[in-house]
Amino acid sequence: MERLPGFRDFYPEPLPSKDASSFDLRNYIFSKWRETSRRYGFREYDGPPLEPLDLYTRKSGEEIVGQLYNFTDKGDRAVSLRPEMTPTLARMAAASERNYKKPIKWFAIPQLFRYERTQKGRLREHFQFNADIIGETDPAADAELVALLIDSLRAFGLTSDDFVIRLSSRNAWQEFFTKRCPDPSRAYEFYQIIDKMEREKPEVTDEKLKSLGFSTGEVKEFISAGEPTEELQSVLRHLKSRKLDAFVQIDYNIIRGLAYYTGIVFEAFAKGASMRAIAGGGRYDNLVKMISDDKINLPALGFGMGDVVLADLLAEKKILPKLQAQTDVFLLIEDETLRDKSLLLVQQLRDAGIATEYSLTPAKSDKQFKRALELSSRFTIRLHLKENRAIALVKDLVQQKQSEIQPEEAVTFIRAQ
Amino acid sequence: MERLPGFRDFYPEPLPSKDASSFDLRNYIFSKWRETSRRYGFREYDGPPLEPLDLYTRKSGEEIVGQLYNFTDKGDRAVSLRPEMTPTLARMAAASERNYKKPIKWFAIPQLFRYERTQKGRLREHFQFNADIIGETDPAADAELVALLIDSLRAFGLTSDDFVIRLSSRNAWQEFFTKRCPDPSRAYEFYQIIDKMEREKPEVTDEKLKSLGFSTGEVKEFISAGEPTEELQSVLRHLKSRKLDAFVQIDYNIIRGLAYYTGIVFEAFAKGASMRAIAGGGRYDNLVKMISDDKINLPALGFGMGDVVLADLLAEKKILPKLQAQTDVFLLIEDETLRDKSLLLVQQLRDAGIATEYSLTPAKSDKQFKRALELSSRFTIRLHLKENRAIALVKDLVQQKQSEIQPEEAVTFIRAQ
Repeated sequence: MERLPGFRDFYPEPLPSKDASSFDLRNYIFSKWRETSRRYGFREYDGPPLEPLDLYTRKSGEEIVGQLYNFTDKGDRAVSLRPEMTPTLARMAAASERNYKKPIKWFAIPQLFRYERTQKGRLREHFQFNADIIGETDPAADAELVALLIDSLRAFGLTSDDFVIRLSSRNAWQEFFTKRCPDPSRAYEFYQIIDKMEREKPEVTDEKLKSLGFSTGEVKEFISAGEPTEELQSVLRHLKSRKLDAFVQIDYNIIRGLAYYTGIVFEAFAKGASMRAIAGGGRYDNLVKMISDDKINLPALGFGMGDVVLADLLAEKKILPKLQAQTDVFLLIEDETLRDKSLLLVQQLRDAGIATEYSLTPAKSDKQFKRALELSSRFTIRLHLKENRAIALVKDLVQQKQSEIQPEEAVTFIRAQ
Repeated sequence: MERLPGFRDFYPEPLPSKDASSFDLRNYIFSKWRETSRRYGFREYDGPPLEPLDLYTRKSGEEIVGQLYNFTDKGDRAVSLRPEMTPTLARMAAASERNYKKPIKWFAIPQLFRYERTQKGRLREHFQFNADIIGETDPAADAELVALLIDSLRAFGLTSDDFVIRLSSRNAWQEFFTKRCPDPSRAYEFYQIIDKMEREKPEVTDEKLKSLGFSTGEVKEFISAGEPTEELQSVLRHLKSRKLDAFVQIDYNIIRGLAYYTGIVFEAFAKGASMRAIAGGGRYDNLVKMISDDKINLPALGFGMGDVVLADLLAEKKILPKLQAQTDVFLLIEDETLRDKSLLLVQQLRDAGIATEYSLTPAKSDKQFKRALELSSRFTIRLHLKENRAIALVKDLVQQKQSEIQPEEAVTFIRAQ
């Protein structure tokens, strides 16, 4: 029996015969995201992995359905596994914003799902770090969020040699568009062309732009001028105060594909050979209003960073830590008449918070010791009889030293090391 | 826009107007489960939340489909949101058992899903702590697992006054059945009757037992005799060695509903007014073979404990800790000309792992201080000018003392407290 295509199993540690996904790696990545968020005062939340389909079509239109893992449930509801977290966040914020002082600073690490029939062999799920600030229009919030993004990448050992935050502005692009095109209903179409420009053949872009009455020349000129808006200037000043300015650059090639962005937008981009987007986000001041039935007006901004792209980059840069099982104490039971006493000691050590392993069944002494080494045990303890009393022989496998103690002193002794 | 019925939102902290589910509470429960598992040398894994429907029908038959959150995906596959973790574990273990020394000790905290159309208002998802030992037939493994179960309840402050582990044996029941009924195909039907007996009207049980050729009398007699099998005696001895015997009792009322159990089965049961099962499990020595295409024979045992039932019990016993936002430092910005310097200090503190908050925009001094208190900040720091130099005023809000230091000493100073 096989798992479904596009899904991952997470074995505790990386297996030689499998792809790299392991719980240890996932846990390493999640821990760094959580630790950085904690330092920044972001609080963790979560929502359901399944939502009404309408939550996604209301903001992105019906065309998004082709990419969703959606279905009709037994109660005849149109539902979807969540493809992104922002709509859930907007729903939750709108429902409970009265309970919170603004700005609200929240993060989540949801598993997200997509089902595109055409992309064989590609993953249909990933985990995504989402951080958002709700209820603040000042660009100080944009700067705080970009700083969090920078530091959540630095937390893995990535430096300004490895990545850059490309900062742009939907507002600047909107102004550019409005000056030249009288039909606001075509703005999103225009943004899509800009968003795809770096990956598209020039003649295709030319053609598309022309159909909207734009020339590639004026678009390129606007990008290379890269005149930062007031908002962007403010964000740059804030980041300079924090001495994080080496991590950012103004880059109007960035516009972000999603329809709902309204202000500053940005992408974290891997430099060098691996050139690709690692994370992206921006302001979406109208989304909460669009989602909420009470038309609650809450400015907001956020970013998302996926675990798969990040893990690939860390592996490429060879900055993944060694991940393996670890045990504090391995209790060697060499004399079966002492198993009862040994089990009591196992219990006492574990009660004291010390990770303790032992062989469930009688096993040869060298086999037990080998297992202790495999589990990277810091200590072994072996009970033996001395003048009819049980004595504990403690070996520190790191410091390479040995001590004989009373069994009842074991917890205190191990804690003191 | 509402979330789907039967699903929970997890706001960071419990909201006054909502049901009790909060991320902080969930995180508290998960942390205790993880910490206890770590002490016992169990390693965390995970699988996909969506699996082929066949994974569940193969072992439980088609009748289980009525309870599943199943659907047909866009690739015409019959799939289901996972209703339990054991089949995924069996699939994963069968696929990779060659890579592991036995016994394998693993745990997971999956979100599980059920869809029963009839149960309005009931939750359709919960999180479940699953711990399993794979590859060991000796009852020492059963004892190790039951000890883990006991300690993962003790970790929350529950004592032997609050719960008991009711130990039983599928083997004992199988022997009882086989002696009296010649048709092994009806065994599962018999187990179901025993499983429901405590909740069913006596006359209904009478009727059902009679149809299989049993009398309620002989069943009751067998239960009250409660003669422990050899396996059970062995488990009791092991638990006694660990001084955990006060937490267990032999109770043949327990048989467990699932078809796949083969040996010792058990339930953690809340004592007193709240009488209910908090967790349950047992041996399932044939399941891996049933699931794996290569007919891999791996004995196994495990238990599951849900977050909702546990949280209810902890709330009833009033042993939930106070959960709230916490900040190490709140940086008060009272002089806007010092905002740049303050932002640099925020960055330095966060870089050093110190959780630091500040007001994104100019705000009155008392409003900022109030926010610092709301976030349970340990310290406030305020920069001010003294002879044209910025000086940091640090207030320890717990110890109620105040110090004047150089801003560049702030990290060292806070760390030393």
